[in-house]
Amino acid sequence: MNHKCYGCNTCKSADKPLEGYIRNLPFETSHHRVDTQKTKCGFGLQGVCCRLCSNGPCRITPESPRGICGANADTIVTRNFLRAVASGSGCYIHVVENTARNVKDVAQKKGEIKGINALNKLADIFEIHEEDMHKRAEMVADAVLADLYLPEFEEMKLIKKMAYAPRYENWKELGILPGGAKSEVCHGVVKCSTNLNSDPVDMLKDCLKLGISTGIYGLTLTNLLNDIVLGEPEIRLAPVGMRVVNPDYINIMITGHQHSMFTYLQKRLTEEDVVKKAEAVGAKGFKLVGCTCVGQDLQLRGAHYEDIFDGHAGNNYTSEAILATGAIDAVISEFNCTLPGIEPICDELKIKQICIDSVAKKANAELKEFDFENREAVSEEIIDKIIESYTSRRGNVELNLFEDHGFDNALTGVSEGSLKDFLGGNWKPLIDLLVAGEIKGVAGVVGCSNLTAGGHDVLSVDLVKELISRDIIVLTAGCSSGGIENCGFMNPEAAKYAGPKLRKVCESLGIPPVLNFGPCLAIGRLEIVATELAEAIGIDLPQLPLVLSAAQWLEEQALADGCFGLALGLPLHLGLPPFVTGSDVAVKVLTEDMKQLTGGQVIINPDAKETADILEKIIEEKRAALNI
Amino acid sequence: MNHKCYGCNTCKSADKPLEGYIRNLPFETSHHRVDTQKTKCGFGLQGVCCRLCSNGPCRITPESPRGICGANADTIVTRNFLRAVASGSGCYIHVVENTARNVKDVAQKKGEIKGINALNKLADIFEIHEEDMHKRAEMVADAVLADLYLPEFEEMKLIKKMAYAPRYENWKELGILPGGAKSEVCHGVVKCSTNLNSDPVDMLKDCLKLGISTGIYGLTLTNLLNDIVLGEPEIRLAPVGMRVVNPDYINIMITGHQHSMFTYLQKRLTEEDVVKKAEAVGAKGFKLVGCTCVGQDLQLRGAHYEDIFDGHAGNNYTSEAILATGAIDAVISEFNCTLPGIEPICDELKIKQICIDSVAKKANAELKEFDFENREAVSEEIIDKIIESYTSRRGNVELNLFEDHGFDNALTGVSEGSLKDFLGGNWKPLIDLLVAGEIKGVAGVVGCSNLTAGGHDVLSVDLVKELISRDIIVLTAGCSSGGIENCGFMNPEAAKYAGPKLRKVCESLGIPPVLNFGPCLAIGRLEIVATELAEAIGIDLPQLPLVLSAAQWLEEQALADGCFGLALGLPLHLGLPPFVTGSDVAVKVLTEDMKQLTGGQVIINPDAKETADILEKIIEEKRAALNI
Repeated sequence: MNHKCYGCNTCKSADKPLEGYIRNLPFETSHHRVDTQKTKCGFGLQGVCCRLCSNGPCRITPESPRGICGANADTIVTRNFLRAVASGSGCYIHVVENTARNVKDVAQKKGEIKGINALNKLADIFEIHEEDMHKRAEMVADAVLADLYLPEFEEMKLIKKMAYAPRYENWKELGILPGGAKSEVCHGVVKCSTNLNSDPVDMLKDCLKLGISTGIYGLTLTNLLNDIVLGEPEIRLAPVGMRVVNPDYINIMITGHQHSMFTYLQKRLTEEDVVKKAEAVGAKGFKLVGCTCVGQDLQLRGAHYEDIFDGHAGNNYTSEAILATGAIDAVISEFNCTLPGIEPICDELKIKQICIDSVAKKANAELKEFDFENREAVSEEIIDKIIESYTSRRGNVELNLFEDHGFDNALTGVSEGSLKDFLGGNWKPLIDLLVAGEIKGVAGVVGCSNLTAGGHDVLSVDLVKELISRDIIVLTAGCSSGGIENCGFMNPEAAKYAGPKLRKVCESLGIPPVLNFGPCLAIGRLEIVATELAEAIGIDLPQLPLVLSAAQWLEEQALADGCFGLALGLPLHLGLPPFVTGSDVAVKVLTEDMKQLTGGQVIINPDAKETADILEKIIEEKRAALNI
Repeated sequence: MNHKCYGCNTCKSADKPLEGYIRNLPFETSHHRVDTQKTKCGFGLQGVCCRLCSNGPCRITPESPRGICGANADTIVTRNFLRAVASGSGCYIHVVENTARNVKDVAQKKGEIKGINALNKLADIFEIHEEDMHKRAEMVADAVLADLYLPEFEEMKLIKKMAYAPRYENWKELGILPGGAKSEVCHGVVKCSTNLNSDPVDMLKDCLKLGISTGIYGLTLTNLLNDIVLGEPEIRLAPVGMRVVNPDYINIMITGHQHSMFTYLQKRLTEEDVVKKAEAVGAKGFKLVGCTCVGQDLQLRGAHYEDIFDGHAGNNYTSEAILATGAIDAVISEFNCTLPGIEPICDELKIKQICIDSVAKKANAELKEFDFENREAVSEEIIDKIIESYTSRRGNVELNLFEDHGFDNALTGVSEGSLKDFLGGNWKPLIDLLVAGEIKGVAGVVGCSNLTAGGHDVLSVDLVKELISRDIIVLTAGCSSGGIENCGFMNPEAAKYAGPKLRKVCESLGIPPVLNFGPCLAIGRLEIVATELAEAIGIDLPQLPLVLSAAQWLEEQALADGCFGLALGLPLHLGLPPFVTGSDVAVKVLTEDMKQLTGGQVIINPDAKETADILEKIIEEKRAALNI
């Protein structure tokens, strides 16, 4: 790798210390490539490029308003969009399927049930009455798996049990109740194929359908199933940022979304014989360093993992910097967001890359496919390879630690359950604060981090600042959380950035004005909070003074999540539009007609202040409609 | 619609009369838009454009060899390719699923089993021993459906029963035996998602896996299941081309791939009470006019449908011309290849569009979803709507018939069964001719029709001419068949175009040198022929003097088919490359390394003569290796 200075051209980051650190790195990162990739294709941005067949690629212009086959901009755009949403849904469905399988395997092996409350809650919802705890867990997992595998033409059985009744009725009326989630992914992918569907509205309705299966299964149920085997979140303060990297340990950076795949390995890494192996090569033991959503989730449940989890270092686009500390000895990935750009950096810094799910196989990584049956043997192999990496690289690779990055006391462990407990076991205190106007409204700032909406986390953080200054409390989930916490908005002291009313609330409770629900999957937890609030008040979700922003959404998964938000009837802000602006129909349906369909709407705005104005106005309108 | 002359700019067609007809049409067709879409995006053509995330689109250039995330050309290209193959596979899996469901429904209702031999053959292969014919058919269908729904990590049970043993061993060794076909589609789509897999070779191997499930289920089994309920192909002569359109009837153009969805409606259209309805409005009755693969398949089985099926008029890119005759009163579509470009033409000519599968819903069509349970009521509704269309348009829309287009005596009805019967019940006559050199080799010219490999069917037809002139017999399947037959190469008189040896064979048997197996699905029938030949000779498939060409492949489905061909170990010619040329790894694996993996190889060449030279050389090498 060329050690020339790449410095002058990195993109901005909301995290200024990180921006400086990356600027001075002796190798190229994604932050540098924002500049080399700054020339964007207008056709691609608008979604009017079609490459579904060998007659193409075709591109829509005023002079050529149809592709060779006759597809117009509306058809091309919505086909591309449906394919993106179906693929994004597929990703989350893959995650929930493996999560359910892991719960089932643990249950069958009479393994540890760390979250008995979570299990009982799900069993209740699913109407499973079984005395034996392990059998009960197996039945819960089986119910999820069975639904995932239903055909597209059979409604998933758990939807009605899981969804808020007024929403279920809305979906039924619109004909968007999804069939089996995996078949819906196939159906979506087929529908947008060459010379098949050409009806933009029909395809957009399918996106909502995919949003529902994604949201209820991929998001909500993944969390709740993980709660069973990983333990439920508990509110606590924890360190965040690159300070969590301790070079005295053999450090493993973990990336992905399938947290339950790590449980056995995690446990082994703390056991005496394995710790001794680490000590034998001069380390104090092993530590997992959190990155991307799996780190965010371990942070969330960190109360259960204080011995092995060092803390959450940063989000997807912090991963290169974390590796650059030189103190990471291995990367274990099981899903996205594992940037391909870490590959040359790992080569350069002699960092072992191991993938435990073939869907996430990186080009230069070793594949050690997770397999519950053989997890013991495979884990030992992985441990040995990591020790080998540690011994071969430490001393040969320079450390470039960043020990004052981040904060020591970010509030974490917030979930629908822990927050309610914190409030005294019900939502009344929060509702009272909302009614009294002490808290004006709730904003879920969720989803990814990208580099193009002003730079790394720039819009997300700016928007959060604007929202809290207007007494709107922010709940986060996803890589956006990782950025916001590294910028200090999740420490209790951050109350000072809030508007006077919200500040007072935060100070009296000792909490920050931004509450971190963890990984993107936890968008499903926010949905539970929203539903329980609506239920407590006796209204439907669209009536709540609650808005969503996926300000810096990145991936197709975020689009599927977004469709869930729309199906829930919530206003959804995006800093950058999905690639749909070339279709008048798509834009109108998403930003306007959706209000009549589900109550939701998409708001596209790259400016934090303008966005906050819009979201505040929506919240005020919703408040007015509720007479508060 | 603007009635200006669009004439000067249509693309070439191998079918010169058709080319002239289209040039003079008073509206725009796909043949016109080849010109308006002639500026192609080089990034798209090479596959180095990525639009998987909001940081993009990113494009690979020598100055920017990685996308923002770090993905290089190999990763971007193979991700795009895997997504295309997975989507194409999804399409065929959708078709086989519905086909199996229809067989099951017919069986459960004790409906007509038209192909008892086909049923018994499949029951034997599947090792199903059941006396009752209907129960047996149900069990056959269930075995297919069960396999489709297996998880990705469980091998489909029928693969081993269906596949040629040496191939099965090759696939097992390569680790490309597919799990449940629908889960494989999901898995493929997930694997190529943002920041997941980045390993080009791993992704290309998955394409082979998808090729196998596509080929065995989507292609081969779809045909064999259809044989049960639609009747087995019988060799006969039939008219082809636009001459089949008879304005005295109420004409329904049918498009798609899911032939079994039409059976009930087809039957109703010939029944006295319905014919009377037609007569009451001045028509002689109803006729189905074949177009795309569903027409090709009805042509294949035409012996069973002489009363209702008027003949195959043309392939996908003939559909606009067929409508332009003015004598088509309705289009019923159930899948692709139903061009979106027919929509404005149908509006202009007041042609009713009805879709019977939502995946193929056209923007301005009415959706009358096929539903076995309610097929009786829905069929009556459809019939009434078509009659309404006939009465409202006839007299008001000018006829522009093309009665001398096509031929009266194309040989059709060729299948693995009917051909073997024709040869006397075994393959020995064909093998003897091959061994004696009277037939030098076999070329499967398969797949779609596109407009960009020289024009409409230009390369396919030119290649066929070259191959038969070299005494290579051609077997066809797909829209390519529709073009080749409309150019006269499937009439017995076409023997004159063959080389002296092949001509003699054809003349003595009274057959053309190009044998039409029907729809693209029938690529699966060619595979059976190839397998049975190899088995009779006692060799593996890659040793046969047999080559494939999807000279004018169009859709992602063709790519999935192509991957099946590669998994079978066959040389596969493509006139236009898939969008992979931007990746050295992808090109090398597909065109070179594949020989060591499966025995297959991709050959890209847009020139008919050069291609024939290459394919002839391969055939000669294979002959030499067999000492013949």
